[in-house]
Amino acid sequence: MKGRVSLVGAGPGDPELLTLKAAARLEEADVVLYDALVSAETLTLAKNAQCFDVGKRKGRGSIAQAAINQLMIHLARGGDRVVRLKGGDPFVLGRGGEEALALAEAGVPYEIVPGISSALAAPALAGVPVTHRGVASAFVVLSGHSPEALVEVLDSVTPHAATLVVLMGLATRATLAKCLIERGWSRATPAAITCNTSFADSAAWTGTIAGLSRAPIPLPGAPGVIIIGEVVRLAAPISKGLVSSKGVLA
Amino acid sequence: MKGRVSLVGAGPGDPELLTLKAAARLEEADVVLYDALVSAETLTLAKNAQCFDVGKRKGRGSIAQAAINQLMIHLARGGDRVVRLKGGDPFVLGRGGEEALALAEAGVPYEIVPGISSALAAPALAGVPVTHRGVASAFVVLSGHSPEALVEVLDSVTPHAATLVVLMGLATRATLAKCLIERGWSRATPAAITCNTSFADSAAWTGTIAGLSRAPIPLPGAPGVIIIGEVVRLAAPISKGLVSSKGVLA
Repeated sequence: MKGRVSLVGAGPGDPELLTLKAAARLEEADVVLYDALVSAETLTLAKNAQCFDVGKRKGRGSIAQAAINQLMIHLARGGDRVVRLKGGDPFVLGRGGEEALALAEAGVPYEIVPGISSALAAPALAGVPVTHRGVASAFVVLSGHSPEALVEVLDSVTPHAATLVVLMGLATRATLAKCLIERGWSRATPAAITCNTSFADSAAWTGTIAGLSRAPIPLPGAPGVIIIGEVVRLAAPISKGLVSSKGVLA
Repeated sequence: MKGRVSLVGAGPGDPELLTLKAAARLEEADVVLYDALVSAETLTLAKNAQCFDVGKRKGRGSIAQAAINQLMIHLARGGDRVVRLKGGDPFVLGRGGEEALALAEAGVPYEIVPGISSALAAPALAGVPVTHRGVASAFVVLSGHSPEALVEVLDSVTPHAATLVVLMGLATRATLAKCLIERGWSRATPAAITCNTSFADSAAWTGTIAGLSRAPIPLPGAPGVIIIGEVVRLAAPISKGLVSSKGVLA
């Protein structure tokens, strides 16, 4: 069976942050099924492939997960080298596990190619180390896609115990701020939003939890990552010497 | 000033999991200062560079952090293109923030090139999604380098609320297991250890928290990642169809 599926992480967006393996898989691919967060520049590496947008977008039509799974299986059985290209890392808040299970159950050979999650790249490129000696020794990655999802996780983490990195949380940032304050986080805890990390037009906001509810989204319509914790204070001194301005907090 | 420093994440070890940017920086480098966890194969990309091992190893002599900072600054001021190559991601539990601060304070131009953290690659390559719908919606990354570090974080996370990913925790796994059980985690919670993730000789153990204390280290002497949570159960069905056996749990 020549056909196979590579579940590939596209990283945060800048094609230079693809792995060598991801780039090689794109070059060899017959078909690429890509998500909404994958950049056009990244797709140019797939020179010989047909590329299909199967991304889910708020308020727009999108292909159901079951249909994506069926499409991958169908194409691989037909002999195609399929790249399923997912923003960030395939196994971080992206239903990659469900896709892997579907492929395994169908008996389709597949592989996992990790990518750089924006949960790590967004803070790093903004000059924020998610851990720092004497400041934070652990970090939590969670989804803000629904208020319920946020509450469940925030209920289970002691205030100020770890850096929080929230993906898909721009729309629910007011709930995030309210929940944190209600659970005993100081209103003065530093907070940041970075949008379009690793792209030339990346933009950021910094402030505190108190200001997060009404914080302007730095780049409306673009994906964003919210970072909560004392480590955000390090962005200013760390950013001083940074050569590239991509994603640097003001 | 031609000299500059790139703080580069080398990823988990397999050179194919380097980013395109990391590979380019290694090719252009005059000097590479690398950590203990960086693989020899990765260093072959630095064709024109002098490579120095500045890694810290338990029980062996190593260069102090202040000396590494001074060396980077000295070399960059002398006009060298310096790559500071760190295992995984430079800003995840690796003192990258301290190095960035030292460079910024010295006025040396530098950049951050994120890498794939083994905190994400180790679970992914073992077929474990750190988040999975209906199983885990968040994950915590922490260090097991000391029992005190472990206790502090474990005290602040409600049992079973998130997947735990512990780096540098092989030596303290008995403390980890004991602390989890004392804090109310079920003894039957699935647990896994993966060693040398992304390498051909990667090896893994799976069991439960109850068995973790006496779990054999799958590859003694190699770095390992511990994963705790129900998501570990997904490794068996997900691994069924995986093409590469690298890091797949038995």
